Amino acid sequence: MADSTVFRASTTAPVNIAVIKYWGKRDATLNLPTNSSLSVTLSQRSLRTVTTASCSASYPASEGDTLTLNGSLQDISSSKRTLACLASLRVLRNELESANPSLPALSTYPLRIVSENNFPTAAGLASSAAGFAALVRAIANLYELPQSPTELSRIARQGSGSACRSLQGGYVAWRSGTKEDGSDSIAEEIAPASHWPEMRALILVVSAEKKDVPSTEGMQTTVKTSPLFATRAERIVPGRMTAIETAIHNRDFPAFADLTMRDSNNFHACCLDSEPPIFYLNDVSRAAIRLVNDINHVAGKTVAAYTFDAGPNAVIYYLDDVSEIVAGTFKAILGEGLDGWEGPFGDRLKGVSAGADLQKLDSRAIEALKHGISRVILTGVGEGPEKVDTHLVSETGAILKSGQ
Amino acid sequence: MADSTVFRASTTAPVNIAVIKYWGKRDATLNLPTNSSLSVTLSQRSLRTVTTASCSASYPASEGDTLTLNGSLQDISSSKRTLACLASLRVLRNELESANPSLPALSTYPLRIVSENNFPTAAGLASSAAGFAALVRAIANLYELPQSPTELSRIARQGSGSACRSLQGGYVAWRSGTKEDGSDSIAEEIAPASHWPEMRALILVVSAEKKDVPSTEGMQTTVKTSPLFATRAERIVPGRMTAIETAIHNRDFPAFADLTMRDSNNFHACCLDSEPPIFYLNDVSRAAIRLVNDINHVAGKTVAAYTFDAGPNAVIYYLDDVSEIVAGTFKAILGEGLDGWEGPFGDRLKGVSAGADLQKLDSRAIEALKHGISRVILTGVGEGPEKVDTHLVSETGAILKSGQ
Repeated sequence: MADSTVFRASTTAPVNIAVIKYWGKRDATLNLPTNSSLSVTLSQRSLRTVTTASCSASYPASEGDTLTLNGSLQDISSSKRTLACLASLRVLRNELESANPSLPALSTYPLRIVSENNFPTAAGLASSAAGFAALVRAIANLYELPQSPTELSRIARQGSGSACRSLQGGYVAWRSGTKEDGSDSIAEEIAPASHWPEMRALILVVSAEKKDVPSTEGMQTTVKTSPLFATRAERIVPGRMTAIETAIHNRDFPAFADLTMRDSNNFHACCLDSEPPIFYLNDVSRAAIRLVNDINHVAGKTVAAYTFDAGPNAVIYYLDDVSEIVAGTFKAILGEGLDGWEGPFGDRLKGVSAGADLQKLDSRAIEALKHGISRVILTGVGEGPEKVDTHLVSETGAILKSGQ
Repeated sequence: MADSTVFRASTTAPVNIAVIKYWGKRDATLNLPTNSSLSVTLSQRSLRTVTTASCSASYPASEGDTLTLNGSLQDISSSKRTLACLASLRVLRNELESANPSLPALSTYPLRIVSENNFPTAAGLASSAAGFAALVRAIANLYELPQSPTELSRIARQGSGSACRSLQGGYVAWRSGTKEDGSDSIAEEIAPASHWPEMRALILVVSAEKKDVPSTEGMQTTVKTSPLFATRAERIVPGRMTAIETAIHNRDFPAFADLTMRDSNNFHACCLDSEPPIFYLNDVSRAAIRLVNDINHVAGKTVAAYTFDAGPNAVIYYLDDVSEIVAGTFKAILGEGLDGWEGPFGDRLKGVSAGADLQKLDSRAIEALKHGISRVILTGVGEGPEKVDTHLVSETGAILKSGQ
């Protein structure tokens, strides 16, 4: 009779938002990128995924590995990316078991994985990075793997490219690498959150529009059809990677901001140069860009930087000490009533209802933003995955609700 | 006492819309471009400038040269571009007079120039190309200059770069040239309108929005700040020029269309890659792009091509025999009541109220277009400047109204 012990491990994982963008794969199966990228890990006090990995000899083999995401069972049998992660982690566990036969043979047990995001899917935030980071981290914990976050990033990358950057906190570089097997395509923390803890991120969530081109599909289109793209990947990004790492080491916000904005525009330019053209920025995004530029102009220095992923939402980076002129201005435009001004980073803005003189900002951009933003998320740089003791699977293997 | 004879010559000149775009100057004074470009001259039955150039020894020298545009006197003393054109034309006239002293000394007389556009400035169409082409052509006629349109294009180019392409009809290439003095930066007709007379252009005029970045300023910003731009100018456009000339010679619409759309996107990508980013396309423009792609998809072949200049208006090229599925579809979306469906090219669409099945087109794009287009202009490829006998200056030198 099978041992009924249920082995469990749980972790949180953060979202990350790139400042030097990942766009384009040199190998679609291994998720190897055409260029390096760099991101800021966002605080899990605002946005996080919680995942419990469990396994047991008592789980019916007929069910195989299962993944329940936000309460609904996923069909992972058709998800090559998930299967690749699970297989790689099992290989590592199996190595441990082979070296030490006294260990329980967890690599042979079915996995029961339960994952929940604390942010609404309606927010339009790519949850796959946090999701795959949490999945890999939770199973690595369950399997008691000795590998470092950087070593595990090779595995998370196969789930979702940008997931490899969510295994660490602070400021994280994903090196594209050059090897065909992807072994040097890994993420490394170039500075912890504590190095530059004042970094804030204000996410302006654009009211739901039509569905965007999925990023994997968009990347393939760009790589195949954009005659400008090779210049970006080969000649522009490498210098920007070096420059932004220097800016982060020196805590040089104007340089960081300048590179961030230029790289966002450069990435979206390559999308537009694709055939058919890919548009992620809409008129509301354009208004946000205009207002960030206007705020910097009014401030007389670069105090804010916009960046856009594969969607219209603006992410605006700034430092805590300029909260009033940056976040305060957006709060004055969007209204205190909008969802999202409260929360872990909200105290700093309590009572702040105006930043820059709105008369000095583009009035059409203000109108476009007022009508086009459905909520904000006020957050900042944060830590990597954290082990937690609150499991989403019971001691007997039952799936629990997180109660979030 | 001065001779009171008033010498007069009048001409029309057309608008042209580039399919390989001019963006970027290698010399801002001489208007020398960073890359060659190619345009379609649009019919003057729809859009034209009429200009009368006159001169007389009886015109008061104290007034100097004057230009009256759409009824209002312009201050040309501050327009270096206009002054450069007038000076170059006087030099050529002076050469004639030196060689043949019996000629009246027109080069020494003040010029009185009157110009009118038949299209509303509200249409947001760049009128400077037609305007400078008409000015140069009218004065060249007045001065009885022997120079060919290609030779005169050197002069018109100094007024407005794209004006050099409006001196000829049909399909016109502007060679960037390599010489510092610009003597090889000239326009030449690569095919007359009669070579491919079926070419049509449907202009969707986007409801007035905020003023765009002026193109001269935008070009400078792009050349200075976009790291992608050199790739466009040096490595992408040259091949496209060759390819589109071949497509025109072969009357190969799918190839012509493909290059046209890609080059429009490539140009706007370089605008977006500028710092600060320049946006000419808005959500209505995006909707037009989407619908052109959808119409091509429904048609099962490439029957329409969009292109956008430095503004949100869409210009859609197609051939007469697919009028129903292209223009007919837009007419069905925008409604017959919209201004612009009548006119010289309107007969073809009489009674046509539907093209492609609207159910097969993106519904959000249809909505965006319905609300964002203020008028259309239905036109086609046409001839170059034409000499006319209806003058805007009387025999005694009085400024007349054209009565258009």
